[in-house]
Amino acid sequence: MFSVTVRDHMMVAHSFRGEVFGPAQQLHGATFLVDATFRRAEVDADGIVVDIALASEQLKEVVSQFNLRNLDDEPTLAGLNTTTEVLAKVIADRLAEQAKAGALGAGGRELAGITVTLHESHIAWASYERSL
Amino acid sequence: MFSVTVRDHMMVAHSFRGEVFGPAQQLHGATFLVDATFRRAEVDADGIVVDIALASEQLKEVVSQFNLRNLDDEPTLAGLNTTTEVLAKVIADRLAEQAKAGALGAGGRELAGITVTLHESHIAWASYERSL
Amino acid sequence: MFSVTVRDHMMVAHSFRGEVFGPAQQLHGATFLVDATFRRAEVDADGIVVDIALASEQLKEVVSQFNLRNLDDEPTLAGLNTTTEVLAKVIADRLAEQAKAGALGAGGRELAGITVTLHESHIAWASYERSL
Amino acid sequence: MFSVTVRDHMMVAHSFRGEVFGPAQQLHGATFLVDATFRRAEVDADGIVVDIALASEQLKEVVSQFNLRNLDDEPTLAGLNTTTEVLAKVIADRLAEQAKAGALGAGGRELAGITVTLHESHIAWASYERSL
Amino acid sequence: MFSVTVRDHMMVAHSFRGEVFGPAQQLHGATFLVDATFRRAEVDADGIVVDIALASEQLKEVVSQFNLRNLDDEPTLAGLNTTTEVLAKVIADRLAEQAKAGALGAGGRELAGITVTLHESHIAWASYERSL
Amino acid sequence: MFSVTVRDHMMVAHSFRGEVFGPAQQLHGATFLVDATFRRAEVDADGIVVDIALASEQLKEVVSQFNLRNLDDEPTLAGLNTTTEVLAKVIADRLAEQAKAGALGAGGRELAGITVTLHESHIAWASYERSL
Repeated sequence: MFSVTVRDHMMVAHSFRGEVFGPAQQLHGATFLVDATFRRAEVDADGIVVDIALASEQLKEVVSQFNLRNLDDEPTLAGLNTTTEVLAKVIADRLAEQAKAGALGAGGRELAGITVTLHESHIAWASYERSL
Repeated sequence: MFSVTVRDHMMVAHSFRGEVFGPAQQLHGATFLVDATFRRAEVDADGIVVDIALASEQLKEVVSQFNLRNLDDEPTLAGLNTTTEVLAKVIADRLAEQAKAGALGAGGRELAGITVTLHESHIAWASYERSL
Repeated sequence: MFSVTVRDHMMVAHSFRGEVFGPAQQLHGATFLVDATFRRAEVDADGIVVDIALASEQLKEVVSQFNLRNLDDEPTLAGLNTTTEVLAKVIADRLAEQAKAGALGAGGRELAGITVTLHESHIAWASYERSL
Repeated sequence: MFSVTVRDHMMVAHSFRGEVFGPAQQLHGATFLVDATFRRAEVDADGIVVDIALASEQLKEVVSQFNLRNLDDEPTLAGLNTTTEVLAKVIADRLAEQAKAGALGAGGRELAGITVTLHESHIAWASYERSL
Repeated sequence: MFSVTVRDHMMVAHSFRGEVFGPAQQLHGATFLVDATFRRAEVDADGIVVDIALASEQLKEVVSQFNLRNLDDEPTLAGLNTTTEVLAKVIADRLAEQAKAGALGAGGRELAGITVTLHESHIAWASYERSL
Repeated sequence: MFSVTVRDHMMVAHSFRGEVFGPAQQLHGATFLVDATFRRAEVDADGIVVDIALASEQLKEVVSQFNLRNLDDEPTLAGLNTTTEVLAKVIADRLAEQAKAGALGAGGRELAGITVTLHESHIAWASYERSL
């Protein structure tokens, strides 16, 4: 199995609902380093999993839907606690839709799966892994 | 599949028994960066794999059983070569016991598995992965 | 010249005033890795610049004044654009006051200077360096 | 499942054939950080997956076949686009051959698999994972 | 003293002339992580050293003069051994010219100095520091 | 001013004398990442601060005097508390002697200074900077 990963980041405000979050129920923020991993059984005739330029572009496209915003006000995230885990899934699912829609090129339609890892600090991160 | 990882560290002395270890048979030491990854099929109603505050606390609890000590003198490690691999398993197993005992909260009982990675330097690390 | 550095972090919301900031004028957030460096011409009789446990504690004390908050609402930051540069100075100045007040122990009073570096992402950081 | 990873690096020139690569069709270069992960179901009687000194040595042996060279001129890579993905597979396969040939010691013959990850920059990396 | 640093990277081929370089006299390559640090005695009325968006843009502008090329063929580098040290100076000097020409905004003309650090691997880097 | 830095590491046991160290008075250990920075006003005719191969070799030579040992038993460290600060100075001073003795080549005799930084963990490090 092959994989390719590209990294981008986003700087967002948000707050959580639920006693388990303690002081993180207050409005605060995070820089999320966002690593998107694209998995594929074989590389194509060019020797690649996916066009890395397209992958970076598509990741930036998704990340810029959130970057420099307050996630508490994002209509597409309404009703969600935007935890690191949940955001990893939201981003992986959007990338999966783009892959299926052809935005990652022909290679994107051959992907076996996508994993998204969000680093919220140097000591905590979360991942969501899905098949395609 | 979701996962959450928290990092802590410990600074220990130890030595190894066995010719394969060469000069590492002498008493020496290591800073181990300890990454504990908790895996779960779905997040809970709060949108989390496990309470990250509890996870960090429990990891610190395990790590502090070894931190600033000579592992050659630890009764609970007697008879073990405390290699990076073996320590990864010891820590993963202790975290698994804590999860089962409820120390990670209700979410801890829903975990699919735990992986512990110990970085012994910037150029070497080891992992142990187990189910729960 | 000797120095010792300890790292902590804070996760905050904030917004900027001024056209130069473009979309960062909106409420957003950041994880700041906060590195506090303590400089001293000579180490003391114990061989240290400053008690590293006290240094970590005092850094945490300062960082926790901001962690998990919206900086736009902090009275002590009123009227400031809380840029990475400005926050580095605010933190360095608070640490300097603590050092002078004895909170870093006797060694803290022998410091030549303090530098604080805030990493806002993997590709951008800022520092403020001052003498004591 | 246990694993041990060692890191080395290589600094190479190369170029790609195929329109998908855009300006990377020109002769350019890369520093590849090369992480070789060795997986094994159980550790041996010494408590190790594989002799880490041998593993580092063998990785260096493979990496030095490419280090400080122009990959476009390497006979053993003729006809290949030396993408990060492809190089990860080439290195993993050579390590696998060495393991089978006994160059990693007795433990090398008990390996379940090998994963090689090549970091081409701080924002892009690729992996190849295989069984043994 | 304040400073702001932004990071970009470039992937280049090159070779060195001189026996001291041993096998690096052959055509090979590198990924250089390029950190550009801008120093200034005081921040401006907006609380910044320099417009970080402009700084990132100008750094990318300089780096893209080399990225994905063979430095041995660059007319502007003719006669130079493009060592990590030398490239750090070339980039710092180009950024200094841009700052003086106003490309970093009004703040760029108030800079006290620029430092450029190039990381050629995880175990080697070089810097050039100059005043303005 | 130019500088070149090379990184190596060492894994040691040690203990500290003095109440300020609390539990670190017990025998424990550390992996120290050791960064040696060589500063020089100008590069030589080859475009280098110092022969990086020699620099790496000499750093390894110094580091291997401590690697895989118990520093409490090292005669050359007798009477010293081997804190991160103190070890940084010991290593810097040994490198300075080697530079003066010609072990870094002709360039080593032109150095303006040496800085050694020891990282004891991902959240703490210390430096010693000296002129030559």
